Amino acid sequence: MQDILKDLFIKNEKKIVLLVMDGVGGLPREKGGKTELETAKTPNFDALAAEGECGLHLPIGFGITPGSAPGHLALFGYPPTDYPIGRGVVAALGIGFPIQPGDVAARVNFATRDEEGRITDRRAGRIPTEKCAELCQVLSAVSIPGVELFIQPVKDYRAVVVFRGEGLSDHVEDTDPQATGVRPHDPKASSPKGEKTAQIAGQFIAQSLELLEGRHPANALLMRGFAELPHIPSMQERFGLDPVALAVYPDYKGVSRLVGMDAVEDLQDLDGQAAALRENWDRYTYFFVHHKYTDSKGEDGDFEAKVGEIEKVDRFVPSILELKPDVLLITGDHSTPAVMRAHSAHPVPFLLHAENLRPDAAGEFGERSCARGLWGVIPGVALLPLALSAAEKLAKFGA
Amino acid sequence: MQDILKDLFIKNEKKIVLLVMDGVGGLPREKGGKTELETAKTPNFDALAAEGECGLHLPIGFGITPGSAPGHLALFGYPPTDYPIGRGVVAALGIGFPIQPGDVAARVNFATRDEEGRITDRRAGRIPTEKCAELCQVLSAVSIPGVELFIQPVKDYRAVVVFRGEGLSDHVEDTDPQATGVRPHDPKASSPKGEKTAQIAGQFIAQSLELLEGRHPANALLMRGFAELPHIPSMQERFGLDPVALAVYPDYKGVSRLVGMDAVEDLQDLDGQAAALRENWDRYTYFFVHHKYTDSKGEDGDFEAKVGEIEKVDRFVPSILELKPDVLLITGDHSTPAVMRAHSAHPVPFLLHAENLRPDAAGEFGERSCARGLWGVIPGVALLPLALSAAEKLAKFGA
Repeated sequence: MQDILKDLFIKNEKKIVLLVMDGVGGLPREKGGKTELETAKTPNFDALAAEGECGLHLPIGFGITPGSAPGHLALFGYPPTDYPIGRGVVAALGIGFPIQPGDVAARVNFATRDEEGRITDRRAGRIPTEKCAELCQVLSAVSIPGVELFIQPVKDYRAVVVFRGEGLSDHVEDTDPQATGVRPHDPKASSPKGEKTAQIAGQFIAQSLELLEGRHPANALLMRGFAELPHIPSMQERFGLDPVALAVYPDYKGVSRLVGMDAVEDLQDLDGQAAALRENWDRYTYFFVHHKYTDSKGEDGDFEAKVGEIEKVDRFVPSILELKPDVLLITGDHSTPAVMRAHSAHPVPFLLHAENLRPDAAGEFGERSCARGLWGVIPGVALLPLALSAAEKLAKFGA
Repeated sequence: MQDILKDLFIKNEKKIVLLVMDGVGGLPREKGGKTELETAKTPNFDALAAEGECGLHLPIGFGITPGSAPGHLALFGYPPTDYPIGRGVVAALGIGFPIQPGDVAARVNFATRDEEGRITDRRAGRIPTEKCAELCQVLSAVSIPGVELFIQPVKDYRAVVVFRGEGLSDHVEDTDPQATGVRPHDPKASSPKGEKTAQIAGQFIAQSLELLEGRHPANALLMRGFAELPHIPSMQERFGLDPVALAVYPDYKGVSRLVGMDAVEDLQDLDGQAAALRENWDRYTYFFVHHKYTDSKGEDGDFEAKVGEIEKVDRFVPSILELKPDVLLITGDHSTPAVMRAHSAHPVPFLLHAENLRPDAAGEFGERSCARGLWGVIPGVALLPLALSAAEKLAKFGA
């Protein structure tokens, strides 16, 4: 379906705003109760829902719990199963590392080995992030001819390494043996294409082990999830949009850049995002505004705090409306019910607000209300075409 | 979408029960009236529907009336159009014949020919099943070197033949000319792979004609639908489930075995199925319980009797609930409205009951109520992923 869009797009100056409350979909705390979104007092959302078209979307598919990156790809109009994003890339994007096409990223675990080189702890006693940062500093002394190398801390014992150079490939197998009492695997090419990179990873490990000598418990490292940036056509190319991301968290700037968005730096909160929206209003046609804390509070299991975050975003809505967007789409990238403390596969409520929409039975913004909306349960990738159409950015198909 | 599931499944001990009322979907007897399911008094179903998520499913696709085998494949999570099951195999499974990979099965019609060998009646005057069984007995004298041969009655003038041996193939065309006044076709290979089998079928026909000499009206036979077992990956392999079928009718044990299920033998009725469910509870993670008579009564055009069968199954529900399944899915493999006396293409009501489900507007189990449920009308193959997800058997997709 997405394939026909690229022959139909019309460039115009109409503005689309996608407002994402991360993990907004929820569940009632008790049987017969309300979800987080149904509980929240959201007069702005409700007014928009009453005027707009509502429904629920499935970011990936029936029963599939979305990770954040594929959940967002779906919202941006890209079928996530067509663009798998490897762990190394996710880790690099997650810390805001400006990964480039041709780079190969891999996850690194600091680990503990015995005198024979056998792994005794795959997580080096779960060293804190500060220690991890210090060790990354140490490893920045690794030098491999013809390759630029970046190693940066992620969290606790986890880091990410990025190799940059000619002829690299992610066709390299994990070195993590996924067990203790054995030596790590040597990095091995999974196809001839990966041989150069496997060799480079081998040199990186050998030099690292020397540098880590005596730094027990973090005297070894394991590599996993070698990955390159997937080739994703940009939103400019694919849909004729000039897109910009207004996100506080690096992960979401990362995934936005994957599809060719600019990303505004140094945003701290919704106020900053409102100011950035105003400042950038004339320069773009597609604005992705991301709020992280609905998901964070869901993962904390804090129902009330998630309700509070939703209410905060509701109060942010007037700063969008005063700019008079042609199309406003409000939704989430997945559900994170506080009662589950995790992402879930439940469909995600959405509301689409624009001129010339069908009135429907959804009078407020909530899971049950959206289930009564026009669209029922639809694929997440359908939302971008709906928004493009509402912004008159799609030509007629056929005569 | 199904393709990503096999990379996501998580083996755990949670139990899924699929309760199928064959052909449960129905239609009102009179305008403005209720369907069979809406008429039936089903306090257990209704309580589950009120707590669970409801909707309607399309086993094959819009407007397509499902046969029983593809209807069940969809419920088991296999897109039925990816796994066509040939008529010969359906016939063999239908009579509970233990067909094996490499076997070739074909449908046989007993027919009448004149002295020149031209078909005068393609159904041999619709001889009764007993006569058919007698003729199959006669034909069991056919002997072909290197081939095991099974011929068994199906119903009326219809039988099934199974060839077992090395190098057989279903690339053989029908011999049935679909007309009278002409001679049957010789069995002809549709590709070089089918030549050996075509020759064997030719010998089978030649010997059969001698044995049927003088047995007017059944003095000829026509062969149709040469078919092999399709290769279907098992539910163990595909979804990490340990599945068992609790079905009274051989057809449903047959289709279950196609996807790697064990099938409990010698079940006579719902009481026996309840006992078998209890006895096998600790040994499996997926239980398929099948009730045939909702469909049979629908095909009989007996609205009241179908209502009665639905009520019987409702009374069976407590024997499932006392085992505390983690996920209970109640639905049918297709609709068989009594007013139509046949399978129909109408979507089939379903209810999903588990922890952590979205409340929806379906307060009872019926066609109209399910249409107000969370899911609307979804593909039948979506039900297995929804059940897997509700049983926490699917990992997150992407990071």
